[in-house]
Amino acid sequence: MNREDAVGRVRSARVGRMATVTPDERPHIVPFVFALVEEADVLRVYWVVDRKPKRSPLVRRIRNLERNPAVEFVVDGYDEDWTRLWWVRCSGTGRVVDADDEGAAALAELIEKYPQYESAPPPGPVVAIDVDRITGWDAASDA
Amino acid sequence: MNREDAVGRVRSARVGRMATVTPDERPHIVPFVFALVEEADVLRVYWVVDRKPKRSPLVRRIRNLERNPAVEFVVDGYDEDWTRLWWVRCSGTGRVVDADDEGAAALAELIEKYPQYESAPPPGPVVAIDVDRITGWDAASDA
Repeated sequence: MNREDAVGRVRSARVGRMATVTPDERPHIVPFVFALVEEADVLRVYWVVDRKPKRSPLVRRIRNLERNPAVEFVVDGYDEDWTRLWWVRCSGTGRVVDADDEGAAALAELIEKYPQYESAPPPGPVVAIDVDRITGWDAASDA
Repeated sequence: MNREDAVGRVRSARVGRMATVTPDERPHIVPFVFALVEEADVLRVYWVVDRKPKRSPLVRRIRNLERNPAVEFVVDGYDEDWTRLWWVRCSGTGRVVDADDEGAAALAELIEKYPQYESAPPPGPVVAIDVDRITGWDAASDA
């Protein structure tokens, strides 16, 4: 799968799954919604903590990133016809967005992609994943 | 979500996403198909390397597990109605199955769950994830 196709699939995916590494070197995985921003050659994904800050499972992702910023996420298509399987994987670095303007722009992207956020804007913080590497696979091209 | 409900959702899920940790402490994530086996209080999931052994992305998961056996996977339901979102996360330990009888039984479970494997039995190896911890969340119960 070429880069353009891979980026397009990330852009249009409604949900992904993201993995971080805990301080005791265990993987931690969560489904997440996100918005992709592409500027020149920079690929970046934003997501936002969208529920009560005291919920520890959500905060864990951020605690993990503060200690080890490595993050990887995947979007994929499952189908019972396995010749239609595909995935795109992005590896990068996560960081909590501190700048108000970047956070506001990211939130606008998220609300545009997900009208669900309109009625209940998420409390944040916004997290950016700067993507270093994107790779894709699809079964049809792999036959 | 109670344990019984969480286990049931893992059992019936057609696809999950699994994360391991690479030797350089980065998360690695892949979609995967699996079969759940429950014996008394033991929860175990089996999956099998189902494509050409020389494909490095597939072998990477196993290389990761040999160095750091910690694994976590998630099954989830995405819906545009966010009051219907749910996920179940399982943390455990991965190991390549060496015993022929365990491997054969696992393969039988996989073929029973996925008829796709019937016509083209996967070359293996079979990997077991012994689940230590299962937690689930659903938006409807969280309102």
